[in-house]
Amino acid sequence: MTKRYKITMAYDGTKFAGFQSQPNQRTVQSVLEAAINKMSKLPDKINLYGSGRTDAGVHAYGQVAHFDFPHEMPAQAMLRGLNSMLPLDIEIVDCEIVPETFHARYEAHAKRYLYRVSRSWFIDPFKRLYTGHYKYPLDVELIKTALPDVVGTHDYSSFVASGSQTKSHVRTIYEATVREDLANDELIFEFCGNGFLYNQVRIMVATLLEIGNQRRPVHDFLRLYEVKDRNQARETAPASGLYLKEVYYGDEIQAQIAKSEVPGEKFN
Amino acid sequence: MTKRYKITMAYDGTKFAGFQSQPNQRTVQSVLEAAINKMSKLPDKINLYGSGRTDAGVHAYGQVAHFDFPHEMPAQAMLRGLNSMLPLDIEIVDCEIVPETFHARYEAHAKRYLYRVSRSWFIDPFKRLYTGHYKYPLDVELIKTALPDVVGTHDYSSFVASGSQTKSHVRTIYEATVREDLANDELIFEFCGNGFLYNQVRIMVATLLEIGNQRRPVHDFLRLYEVKDRNQARETAPASGLYLKEVYYGDEIQAQIAKSEVPGEKFN
Repeated sequence: MTKRYKITMAYDGTKFAGFQSQPNQRTVQSVLEAAINKMSKLPDKINLYGSGRTDAGVHAYGQVAHFDFPHEMPAQAMLRGLNSMLPLDIEIVDCEIVPETFHARYEAHAKRYLYRVSRSWFIDPFKRLYTGHYKYPLDVELIKTALPDVVGTHDYSSFVASGSQTKSHVRTIYEATVREDLANDELIFEFCGNGFLYNQVRIMVATLLEIGNQRRPVHDFLRLYEVKDRNQARETAPASGLYLKEVYYGDEIQAQIAKSEVPGEKFN
Repeated sequence: MTKRYKITMAYDGTKFAGFQSQPNQRTVQSVLEAAINKMSKLPDKINLYGSGRTDAGVHAYGQVAHFDFPHEMPAQAMLRGLNSMLPLDIEIVDCEIVPETFHARYEAHAKRYLYRVSRSWFIDPFKRLYTGHYKYPLDVELIKTALPDVVGTHDYSSFVASGSQTKSHVRTIYEATVREDLANDELIFEFCGNGFLYNQVRIMVATLLEIGNQRRPVHDFLRLYEVKDRNQARETAPASGLYLKEVYYGDEIQAQIAKSEVPGEKFN
């Protein structure tokens, strides 16, 4: 009796060549599919569908995927069984049986990313794989002033890396925040939106840091939306600081939006 | 004009086969010596002397070493020069020119180690290399009751791994503490003493966790000092949770001892 399973997973992206399967590469998808197929004990390959890709070195606290399993098995047994076979840099943190109409990618209404920037004067050996690093002075108030420009529905063409195959670069960001973690000397960004372009978060973070360092005018995002030119944003913050924190399905995101202020169309 | 340099370093021990040079292994000492010798531009090999060994996988916030450099160079220039050549999993955090009488090992009067225990129900992918893991229930009050037994001057023969070549197993521990980091679901131990035997901290932590889990009587340390039998302590907590936090020279440790309660001889 085939059942569809939704899994939520955390992974340390350091040793993965990203999420999506690629020939001769260790990817999150290939490692998971190997475990699922081993558990099914059937020759037919079971495919895993992720909510979307993450790049090499990018981490996840809450990546979501689904797959159809040919035997009925309690969700908790599936979670424990898979974790017992998976390497230690990936961990299933939640598992549930979902209706066949659920699709990890098509039904994902929003995603939340987190970006950690270490501000120490040296590259901390314990953070090099888990943060970006910015050693120049930052005026965090300037970044906070710029963040409302990030929110809303915009054409983010200036913030998409070459290689993107998406036709439209219009997306909506519901929430963009920054906070200082003084104990760890870090700056932590969060972005929640209905979808993100290739490298979009990393390019936005690099641009925001340049604003904080006064290398750009504080409202430069408004100009960058107009020019639609990737060469004017230039820098991309490193993959090591980026975490896919949460993927929202169904009505989950409506509740999130209701809680936060959404400037909506005011910038358009 | 030869000068002696004292360096303090942090390293992520994950990819090092410990501190001390070994043939065909990547060790902290060999990586540092390669950088120092490259900087000297002389054919004669410069040797590095560490405060002591750390095992494979053990980390450091404040390991100390010294070396004699044939050219006089300001300490800050030495620090920057070495860091620019070192890989990112090791970082010199302090450098000073010291008298020729200074010796990183012989003059080390005390050391402080920290041990992080993750208590989450699963092995967190982001902590697997940086903590030990204990998933069983723990009564932290029992551990706190046991800790004064750890302090003092004792024969720690029950807590030394085979392979130790030290004759005497008598050492003094000045301070032993534990605190709960509830935000991170961790238990953090610290031990400060005049010297530690091979694997001593890791064996003591494993024994303290067994006390917290009620697998041993709370004052079992007193019995273990008497029996002097490594087989009765058995478990060794993993290297990944251990950090060499600080090495004390000269009068530094006297100030530390004055600040803390030292039970001294009362257990002997």
